[in-house]
Amino acid sequence: MTRGRLVVFEGGEGAGKSTQLRRLLSRLAAAGVPHKTYREPGGTPVGDQIRDILLHHAAPLAPSTEASLFIASRAELVATEVAPALATGTHVILDRFLLSTYAYQIHGRGLSEDAVRAANRLATAGLVPDLTLLLRLDSEIGLERAGSRGGADRIERAEAAFHARVATAFDLFGTPAWQASHPECGRIVAIAADGSEDDVAARVWTDVRTHLPQLVSAGATR
Amino acid sequence: MTRGRLVVFEGGEGAGKSTQLRRLLSRLAAAGVPHKTYREPGGTPVGDQIRDILLHHAAPLAPSTEASLFIASRAELVATEVAPALATGTHVILDRFLLSTYAYQIHGRGLSEDAVRAANRLATAGLVPDLTLLLRLDSEIGLERAGSRGGADRIERAEAAFHARVATAFDLFGTPAWQASHPECGRIVAIAADGSEDDVAARVWTDVRTHLPQLVSAGATR
Repeated sequence: MTRGRLVVFEGGEGAGKSTQLRRLLSRLAAAGVPHKTYREPGGTPVGDQIRDILLHHAAPLAPSTEASLFIASRAELVATEVAPALATGTHVILDRFLLSTYAYQIHGRGLSEDAVRAANRLATAGLVPDLTLLLRLDSEIGLERAGSRGGADRIERAEAAFHARVATAFDLFGTPAWQASHPECGRIVAIAADGSEDDVAARVWTDVRTHLPQLVSAGATR
Repeated sequence: MTRGRLVVFEGGEGAGKSTQLRRLLSRLAAAGVPHKTYREPGGTPVGDQIRDILLHHAAPLAPSTEASLFIASRAELVATEVAPALATGTHVILDRFLLSTYAYQIHGRGLSEDAVRAANRLATAGLVPDLTLLLRLDSEIGLERAGSRGGADRIERAEAAFHARVATAFDLFGTPAWQASHPECGRIVAIAADGSEDDVAARVWTDVRTHLPQLVSAGATR
């Protein structure tokens, strides 16, 4: 049995992660490729309780509390869902993972990179994504898109300077130098998220076929 | 203004931590020493939500999830309560802190010491206890005491081998070699917790006066 592959969608608010993830799932389902999908934070019973605290807690949370809660949600998701699925040959597609913690909690909130990376190791226990699809969009356009959806959550409501730092961080994560010094994040491919939904889906599909041919062909061999 | 001192009570189930903590608080109150007290996990609104998950979650939690949640509760407590109190000269007395995470999650659950220590740095941001009072009691006697209180929580219900590993860990933490290699835990004094409540309270008071004379005399100077 071949181990499943771990594919992650990342990007700032309104970059189209969830839409593009659904498009990829449709392709995989049509091809008969066995897969599961989860969004962070959440994806488990305790993860959903943590998600509720993170997105809707009335009072401010300390940045270190926020980071630890994201990591707790990830720990449960990896241990009880992602790792078992991969071990049985099922591919896993995630809506956010390591890069979101690095962008929002290290660069956005200003926490120590060393401490957050180290804490994250507790959650992942060495699991490295096979491919991260980093959707890149000007942060003002993204926030405008996210804002037009209504019902901004606690993190979306943070000040503009916070979201600007997050956007700059995602730009940084697309560079080879950054990726070389953060091997725990695996292969990251930056994808332009402007243009039509169909255009972006075509770019995503091209990158998945290029970097994970074994995932795309998995359905055909069954 | 002199910085407040951080005093921690630690020990296995039924060692008498909470009882002895209350005895010390009475002494400090009688002497007019300004202090606050908190128990872990909890002590803040989000910490109390986390405490409820940790002690009463119906399904098993992954060990890495459990550790991350304790750390999240600690992060909020340190950032919003302990650090501000110490900065204004108020002493803080805690019911459990670092050593409990090390005993239960590293030695009890078998998580990586490096990962848990590193994650913990996210929560403490360099805060080191001034004195940890480690109450030592044979673990069988302690569990019997704790059990006789009724209503065992999710962690108290863990198997005997788990509690034996925790008890061995607390023994280890009382040794100079262990303390020298774990400077983030500060000064640790092991106190025999057998004998009457009055006997143990007298031992605690002696150690506090010996190691933190400035705390004991604080009330007299006001």
